[in-house]
Amino acid sequence: MMRVGVLTGGGDCPGLNAVIRAVVRKGVQEHGYEFTGFRDGWRGPLEADTVTLDIPAVRGILPRGGTILGSSRTNPLKIDGGIKRIKESMGKLEVDSLIAIGGEDTLGVAQRLSDEYGIKVVGVPKTIDNDLSATDYTFGFDTAVNIATEAIDRLHTTAESHMRVLVVEVMGRHAGWIALHSGLAGGANVILIPEQRFDVEKVCGWVTSRFKASYAPIVCVAEGAMPRDGDMVLKDESLDAFGHVRLSGVGEWLAKEIEKRTGKEARTTVLGHVQRGGTPSAFDRWLASRFGLHAIQAVHEEDWGKMVALQGTDVVRVPLAEATARIKTVDPKLYEEVGVFFG
Amino acid sequence: MMRVGVLTGGGDCPGLNAVIRAVVRKGVQEHGYEFTGFRDGWRGPLEADTVTLDIPAVRGILPRGGTILGSSRTNPLKIDGGIKRIKESMGKLEVDSLIAIGGEDTLGVAQRLSDEYGIKVVGVPKTIDNDLSATDYTFGFDTAVNIATEAIDRLHTTAESHMRVLVVEVMGRHAGWIALHSGLAGGANVILIPEQRFDVEKVCGWVTSRFKASYAPIVCVAEGAMPRDGDMVLKDESLDAFGHVRLSGVGEWLAKEIEKRTGKEARTTVLGHVQRGGTPSAFDRWLASRFGLHAIQAVHEEDWGKMVALQGTDVVRVPLAEATARIKTVDPKLYEEVGVFFG
Amino acid sequence: MMRVGVLTGGGDCPGLNAVIRAVVRKGVQEHGYEFTGFRDGWRGPLEADTVTLDIPAVRGILPRGGTILGSSRTNPLKIDGGIKRIKESMGKLEVDSLIAIGGEDTLGVAQRLSDEYGIKVVGVPKTIDNDLSATDYTFGFDTAVNIATEAIDRLHTTAESHMRVLVVEVMGRHAGWIALHSGLAGGANVILIPEQRFDVEKVCGWVTSRFKASYAPIVCVAEGAMPRDGDMVLKDESLDAFGHVRLSGVGEWLAKEIEKRTGKEARTTVLGHVQRGGTPSAFDRWLASRFGLHAIQAVHEEDWGKMVALQGTDVVRVPLAEATARIKTVDPKLYEEVGVFFG
Amino acid sequence: MMRVGVLTGGGDCPGLNAVIRAVVRKGVQEHGYEFTGFRDGWRGPLEADTVTLDIPAVRGILPRGGTILGSSRTNPLKIDGGIKRIKESMGKLEVDSLIAIGGEDTLGVAQRLSDEYGIKVVGVPKTIDNDLSATDYTFGFDTAVNIATEAIDRLHTTAESHMRVLVVEVMGRHAGWIALHSGLAGGANVILIPEQRFDVEKVCGWVTSRFKASYAPIVCVAEGAMPRDGDMVLKDESLDAFGHVRLSGVGEWLAKEIEKRTGKEARTTVLGHVQRGGTPSAFDRWLASRFGLHAIQAVHEEDWGKMVALQGTDVVRVPLAEATARIKTVDPKLYEEVGVFFG
Repeated sequence: MMRVGVLTGGGDCPGLNAVIRAVVRKGVQEHGYEFTGFRDGWRGPLEADTVTLDIPAVRGILPRGGTILGSSRTNPLKIDGGIKRIKESMGKLEVDSLIAIGGEDTLGVAQRLSDEYGIKVVGVPKTIDNDLSATDYTFGFDTAVNIATEAIDRLHTTAESHMRVLVVEVMGRHAGWIALHSGLAGGANVILIPEQRFDVEKVCGWVTSRFKASYAPIVCVAEGAMPRDGDMVLKDESLDAFGHVRLSGVGEWLAKEIEKRTGKEARTTVLGHVQRGGTPSAFDRWLASRFGLHAIQAVHEEDWGKMVALQGTDVVRVPLAEATARIKTVDPKLYEEVGVFFG
Repeated sequence: MMRVGVLTGGGDCPGLNAVIRAVVRKGVQEHGYEFTGFRDGWRGPLEADTVTLDIPAVRGILPRGGTILGSSRTNPLKIDGGIKRIKESMGKLEVDSLIAIGGEDTLGVAQRLSDEYGIKVVGVPKTIDNDLSATDYTFGFDTAVNIATEAIDRLHTTAESHMRVLVVEVMGRHAGWIALHSGLAGGANVILIPEQRFDVEKVCGWVTSRFKASYAPIVCVAEGAMPRDGDMVLKDESLDAFGHVRLSGVGEWLAKEIEKRTGKEARTTVLGHVQRGGTPSAFDRWLASRFGLHAIQAVHEEDWGKMVALQGTDVVRVPLAEATARIKTVDPKLYEEVGVFFG
Repeated sequence: MMRVGVLTGGGDCPGLNAVIRAVVRKGVQEHGYEFTGFRDGWRGPLEADTVTLDIPAVRGILPRGGTILGSSRTNPLKIDGGIKRIKESMGKLEVDSLIAIGGEDTLGVAQRLSDEYGIKVVGVPKTIDNDLSATDYTFGFDTAVNIATEAIDRLHTTAESHMRVLVVEVMGRHAGWIALHSGLAGGANVILIPEQRFDVEKVCGWVTSRFKASYAPIVCVAEGAMPRDGDMVLKDESLDAFGHVRLSGVGEWLAKEIEKRTGKEARTTVLGHVQRGGTPSAFDRWLASRFGLHAIQAVHEEDWGKMVALQGTDVVRVPLAEATARIKTVDPKLYEEVGVFFG
Repeated sequence: MMRVGVLTGGGDCPGLNAVIRAVVRKGVQEHGYEFTGFRDGWRGPLEADTVTLDIPAVRGILPRGGTILGSSRTNPLKIDGGIKRIKESMGKLEVDSLIAIGGEDTLGVAQRLSDEYGIKVVGVPKTIDNDLSATDYTFGFDTAVNIATEAIDRLHTTAESHMRVLVVEVMGRHAGWIALHSGLAGGANVILIPEQRFDVEKVCGWVTSRFKASYAPIVCVAEGAMPRDGDMVLKDESLDAFGHVRLSGVGEWLAKEIEKRTGKEARTTVLGHVQRGGTPSAFDRWLASRFGLHAIQAVHEEDWGKMVALQGTDVVRVPLAEATARIKTVDPKLYEEVGVFFG
C-alpha cells in the first residue's frame, strides 16, 4: 500500500483545497492509496506535524478558499539538518512520496529534494501572480483577476460622479499579469506593470486626455510597478513589524503625483488580501481539480521530479527544474497590444 | 405645466440613479411634468449648468452606480450671492421647484432655501454611512455592507491559512453602521466603531483568545474609530493635495499595534471607494425607487420643506429640519448586543 | 443548568444557520446553557433524533445556506400520540425548552405546544416569501430578491439583443413579495403577483408598447400568479411523484400566450430552488443573527409562547398566535405605486 | 480610407460588445478606419440597416452583455438574391470589408461569402457552448460556466437541508462543455453530456450511494443529454409558437425517473437564458477584447477568409473553413477523467 504526503506552501491561493480534494478522491477511489496531510508547508514534514487526510476530510472543501493544510514560508534548505529531518519524518510516518503544492520557493525545494536527495516528489504549481513559466495559467489567478475587475467596475461610477482619478493598486510584485488582465477587463485607462518602468508625465497625459473627453480615468497599477525616473521613495512604514518589505505604496504615491501635476483630485484603493481569499472562480476550480487528478496520476506512474502544467487545454508534466528556471513576465508585445486602450 | 429641477449633492452612493429614474418616470407619466437636471449638486443651479432629463435620459440607469447628474460639495450658502444666483437660474430656466438628493450638507442647504428663502424644495436623504436620524435606512448603505461583507468572507480563508490577523478598514467617519453590520455579517471577531473609543489591549486580548481556539481573527474597524488612550498619531500623509483630511490610517496603525503587542503577523485591507461604487443591491434599488416615487408625489402635493424617509416598511415625509438635526449613531445597547460575537 | 432544544422546520432558507449560531454563542457564553439540536424539524423531538450543538458545532456556519440541523415538513399534530412522544423525548433528553425556527406550519405547531400543552417554546419566524404578518421582514427574503434581481439584470441584455420577451418566474405561492421587489429592482416591465389576478391582454399591451419604444420587455411573474379569466390549465405534470402540487407552470404558460397574441418570441426562465440556497446576503445574516440573540434572551427571561419579530430596526417579541393569524400579502396600494414602471 | 462593416449573428453571448469596442478603438486610433455597424446579423447588410459605430458609440459597453448591434439568425444564403443584395448594400454604403462575429452558422455564411463571392471577410468565433473546433475557448463560455457553478453552489445547501436530489439543467445541445466544467466546479455528483447517452439506472445508483454517505446529490445535465435506452419522450410543448424545438425537458424528465426509481424526492432547476445574459467574466472580457484587436489587425493586413482563434495564450488566425468543419465535442477520455467525482 502506498502512503502519499501532501503539503501546501507559500501564500494562499483560491483552488488549493480543490487540488487536495482531487488528489485524495482519485488516490483513494482508483488506486487505494492512503494520505498524510502535512501542516503549514515544509514545516509539516520537518516537525512531523500531520493532519488526517481522507475522503471525509476533503468533503465540501472544493468551493472554499485557503488551504485546509495551512501554509508557511518555512524553507528546510535553510535549516540545519532540514533534509535529514524530512527524511526521518517520512520514514517514521511511512510516507512513501510527496505532492508539494506551491510557488517558486516551494517547488524549488521540491526539485532539490527530488534531484539531490532522492525523495519522491511530484509538484503542483501555485501562484496568484501567474508568473511561473512552465504553465499557461496557475489557479488562483483567474479568481484574483475577477475580484480586481469587479472592483474596477465599481470604481468607474464613483470616478465619473466626482470627476476624480481613481488609482487601484493590485497584486503583482515582479509580474504584471493581474494588472494587465484586470485593467483591460475593467476598462482602466492606464495599466502599469513591474516589467516596464512608467513615465509619470505620460500617465498624467493620459489622465488629462481622458478628462478632456469628459470621462474620469481609472489607473490600474501593479504593486511592483516603478516610475521611470526613480524618484519614488518608499515610505518608512514599508517595513512591517517582522522586517518584511511591504510593497504597498506605489498606488498612494502615484495618486499624489497625479494630483500635484494635473490639479485633479485622485484617490487610491489598495485591494490587498481580498484578491487572494475566498471561493475560487469556476475556472480555478476546474484547473485546480485537474492539476490534482494529474498529480496523483504522476505518483501512480512514479514519474518523480515532475510538475503538472497547463498547455492549451491539456494538463501535461514538465520537469520541476523547468518550473523554477525563470519567472514568466508580461511580453512587451502584449503590453503594447493592450496599450490601444490607454488614455 | 410644472418644471421640476433635480440635483444630487455630496459623495456618490449606489441608488442615486434609481431615485432620478423614479422621479422622472412618475413625474412625466402620471403628472405630465417636465424636468431639468442640474449638474454637480448645487453648482448646477448656481451656474445654470443643466442636462436634459426626460424618459429616454433615465432608460437603463436603474442598475448603474454613481449619478448621471454628477455631484459636488459646492455650498451656495458659503458663496457670496449664492442664493440670489440660484433664484435667478431657476427663474430664467422656468424651474418651479427642486428635488435635492443628498446628505446632511445638501439637505441642510435645501432646508434653509426652503425655510428662509421660500424656494420650493423636497429632499431625498442619501448617505452611504446610514447616519441620518430621520430615516430607518438610507439607500447605498446596504450595497456598501454587502461589499464589505463579501470582502470579509474572502479574508477569512487567507487569515486561517497563514494564522494571521486581518484588519479590514471600512467606511464610517462619525457612525459605525457599516462596520457593525458588515462586521457582524462577515463574522469578524472584533468590531470597532467611532461611537466608542477602543482599548488596544482589549482588542489584543480578543485576538489572542481567537488564536488559542486555533482560529485566525478578523478585525473590522470603521475609518473613524479611535483608540481609547488617544495615542494614535495621524500620519502626515493624512492630508491630501487639496488639504482634505484623509481619515484612512486607523487600520494600518492598528495592525502595527497588534503585531507589536501580540507577536502575531497582521495585515490591513482598506476597502475605500469600492464600497460606494457600482451597481446597487436589490434593497437599495427598491428603497431608492420608492424614495423617488414619494418625492415627486410630495412635489405634486406641494408639500415643500419635507424629506422622504423610511419608517418600518413605509415611506413617510418628515420636515427637512429633522433630517439634519442630529446624526444617527450606533446605540451603545446595540453595540453591546453584538459584542457576544467578539473574541 | 438549562438545556435548550433547537429545531428548524419547513423549507430551507438562507440565514437558518446564522440563527442557530447566534442562539448557541449567546446561550453558552452569557448564560451557560447547553443545547440539543433536533434533526429535521419536528421529526427530531418525535424520534429523539439529536445532534451535538455546541460552540465548535456552530463555527464557520454563518455564511452557509441551508441548516446544519436538517429540515422536514413533519407535523406532530397529525401523528397519533405525537405530542406525547415529544414530551417524552424532551424529558428523557432533559431538554427544558425549545427554540422552533420555521414558517407558518412550524410556528403553528409551536404555538399549540405552548398554549395547549404547556411546552416551553420560543419561535423564530422564517419564510423566504416574507409573508408572515407579525414581522416587517423575514431572513432569506433579501437573499432571494438579490438572486432574482441579478437574474433579471442578466436577462435584459439577452432580451434586447434578440428583441424577445423574457418571462422570469420567481417564488411566491400566496404572496408576491419576491416578484414585487425583484421585479422593481430588476427593472421588469411587468410584475404579476398572486394577490391580483392578471389580464393577459393587458400584459400583452405592456409588452407591445415596450417593443414600440424599441426595447425588449421582461415579465416577472410569481409562481402563484393566476390569469383573470381563469383559462390557465395546470399541466398534468404539476403533481410530483409524491402527489405534491408543483406550481411551476404559469411562466411557461404565459410565454406561450404572449407569443400567440403578440407574435413576438418569448422565453421563460424558472429560477426555482436557486433562490433559496446558498450564502445569505449581509442583511439576512444581520437579521438572522439578531433574531437568534433575541430568541435566546426570551428563553432566558422565560417569555414562552412568543416569537421574535422585526419592527422598523427593532427586534421585538409578539405572541406566536399573532404570527400565524394571517398571511401578509402585498397591499394593493403598494402594487399600484409600483405600476408606474409597467409597460 | 477604409470603411469596415461589423455584424453579430446568432444567439447573444457575453463579450460581443467587448469585441466590437476593441475593433473600433484600434481601427480608429491606430489605422484611421471608419466603421459601419450592421443591425441584427446578416439582416443588416441584406437590408442596408445600419447603426453609427464610432468611438463614442463604444464607450462604456465593455462590461455590458448582449450586443449593441442586435442579432438574428437570418441566413442570406437561404434568401433569393441574398448575396447580391449584400454586395449592393456594401457598395452603396462604401463598406470595403466585413468583420462577422458569430457561431457556426454566421461563420459558415462568412466563409462562403469570402471563398465563393470574393467578399472581404474576417471572422470572430462566438459560441456560449464552446464547441468550435478551431479555438481553445470562445468568449461567453467562461461567464456561462461561472453562472451555472454559482447556481450549483446554491443548490447544495438546499439539497442537504431536505435530503433531496437536485437536478440542474444547463445549456449545451450538442456539446457538454458547460455541464462538464460547471458540474465539476460546482461539485455535482453526476454530470450528463450529449456526447454520451446515459444509463438512468447508473445515475440512480450514484444518487443512492450519495445518500448512503449521508449527503444529498446534485445532478448536472446538459440540455442535449439523452438516456441510453431512448425511452425519453419529448413533451408536446417542446415546440414553441414558432415551431422551434425547445430542448428543455431532460432535466424534468430525469427528476421524475429518479423519484420513481429511488423513492427520493427530486427537484429540477432549468437555468436557461440567465446563462447567456449579463456582464461578462474577466476572462471573457480579456478574450473578446483580444479577439477584436486581432480581427482588425487581420483586416489591416488584408488577411481575408480567416478567423481569429485562441491557442494556448496566443491569438492566431485560422481559415474560416476550419472553424466550421466540425463541432468540438467533449473527449471521452476527459469525461472519464472527471468521472472520479461521480457518486
